[in-house]
Amino acid sequence: MKRLIRDELEEARRAIHGLVHRTPLLSSRSVSDACGLEIWLKAENLQKTGSFKPRGAFNKVLHLDVRERERGVVTASAGNHGQALAYVARHLRISAFIVMPEKANASKVAAVRSYGAEAILRGSVWDEAYAYSLELASEKGLTHVHPFKDPYIMAGQGTIALEILENVSDLAAVIVPIGGGGLIGGIASAMKLYRPEVQVIGVEAEGAANMYRSHREGRAVELDEVSTIADGLATKHTDPDVFTLLETVVDDYVTVSDDELREAIRFLLERAKLLTEPSGAAGAAAALTGKLHLPRGTKTAIVLGGGNFDVKGKMTISI
Amino acid sequence: MKRLIRDELEEARRAIHGLVHRTPLLSSRSVSDACGLEIWLKAENLQKTGSFKPRGAFNKVLHLDVRERERGVVTASAGNHGQALAYVARHLRISAFIVMPEKANASKVAAVRSYGAEAILRGSVWDEAYAYSLELASEKGLTHVHPFKDPYIMAGQGTIALEILENVSDLAAVIVPIGGGGLIGGIASAMKLYRPEVQVIGVEAEGAANMYRSHREGRAVELDEVSTIADGLATKHTDPDVFTLLETVVDDYVTVSDDELREAIRFLLERAKLLTEPSGAAGAAAALTGKLHLPRGTKTAIVLGGGNFDVKGKMTISI
Repeated sequence: MKRLIRDELEEARRAIHGLVHRTPLLSSRSVSDACGLEIWLKAENLQKTGSFKPRGAFNKVLHLDVRERERGVVTASAGNHGQALAYVARHLRISAFIVMPEKANASKVAAVRSYGAEAILRGSVWDEAYAYSLELASEKGLTHVHPFKDPYIMAGQGTIALEILENVSDLAAVIVPIGGGGLIGGIASAMKLYRPEVQVIGVEAEGAANMYRSHREGRAVELDEVSTIADGLATKHTDPDVFTLLETVVDDYVTVSDDELREAIRFLLERAKLLTEPSGAAGAAAALTGKLHLPRGTKTAIVLGGGNFDVKGKMTISI
Repeated sequence: MKRLIRDELEEARRAIHGLVHRTPLLSSRSVSDACGLEIWLKAENLQKTGSFKPRGAFNKVLHLDVRERERGVVTASAGNHGQALAYVARHLRISAFIVMPEKANASKVAAVRSYGAEAILRGSVWDEAYAYSLELASEKGLTHVHPFKDPYIMAGQGTIALEILENVSDLAAVIVPIGGGGLIGGIASAMKLYRPEVQVIGVEAEGAANMYRSHREGRAVELDEVSTIADGLATKHTDPDVFTLLETVVDDYVTVSDDELREAIRFLLERAKLLTEPSGAAGAAAALTGKLHLPRGTKTAIVLGGGNFDVKGKMTISI
């Protein structure tokens, strides 16, 4: 994949303007103190559908031609990308098929259906759902919307960087979670274009550190297994094209454990009053544990990727 | 008390600019759908110190003269006002004494001390702490900063209304929790000045419905006892002056039960990704239960007053 150019990012910005939230960029004294950095939280957990994903999905679908839109879109996703594409499709009045593994979380299936998309349960793992989504695309003439390996998707996610740069002067670092690499691909491309001195650091789960390992080994590695509470970070396969792109725009990679993710969720809830999901809290986990190795007081933006945490199933509130 | 005039509100706005956050005003489709209204959430839980209180406290302290500032300030508060005054005092480098009842929550005492103020534990209930804070003011020549019965405090809280009006055109209603009446006094005064057609509805806890009852009976009533999980709403005594003011600017009052507050906290967490404390969730509880009796689709701002919820003590997260 090529690095994004300014036109792609600025066109994405114009295309999705008014369709997604310009999410708040929040400063928090207590988070900054705990990290020893000057922290700015980009609260994409407050984005429509609860994650950053509609930015890319809107940008992709808005750039389809009339006949493609009439036929509809399809993707494979048990998570935020599926919800986002379903939301975008309803908003633009086109039909959407979201293929999810059979064991997908019932509340996520319900969320996709609540947006009016067709949720199709197929396969025991994501790869099988993905294979079926490709079949469906070819059979029904649908446009397949890949969750990350697509310049329109990346450009949409990259608009986050433009918003951060407009609000914080002299930013020195930005911390971004890595699942497939679409979010960091977009943000890092934008930073290298507009403010190349900003360090871009990617965060992975220890149990799914495919990009971290690929970077260390200098080739796109495939993990034997993944194990993390952060389903948004649970990537086994490293896409070689995405890896090649990231190597040119990402400055460093760090990993965090499941316990560090849990602690970051609690900390953000208590101090920043924000609910994040495990993948959404990864940047904060890296900052809170001192793994970023940035000088004290460094002006650092942390992208909180999403907040689709299953409160009913996993959180007990007693008052 | 007199209704605030434009000069007081606009001067407060100028005074506290840059010292407090302009908190985000968030739209949420799922909250709107659940309420049957067009909801805008004014997220004062994301304010510095976790509640709206520093707006008033900054405005008050900034209007003291040099000699008053040199001597310092005192208040009685086991909650958000105490934390806010401690924060403001540290920021402006003046000394602060916060008198709290002996049984005050240890984490709140710690928060006040972490801001560098002197926390003094005195009395078994707030009234006794309050009496001692007055003694201390007279003995040490401190300025006593009342939590709500003060035009500077009210004007500070009223700046919330100015921010809402700048962001939402054609607002039809604003929903505000009522503890002592300072928040709604400021907001309702501002609405009546700038947009008198906006309905201002106050929300109290069923077990502390002193203003609701005062309004129904046409006189400032004192409750025999208060019982609510929302410590920020637990007011027994109705201040006659504040009551008289509110009667001229507040359009209606509703009450919500503890269970309705609990459900609103859960709902805001799951759907809006925001942590609120019980008093902070009161407006949302009223909207979610249909108690506002507003026409479907009414453009309604809900003030989320605070988010100082004791996560460690009351919330179990299992992932």
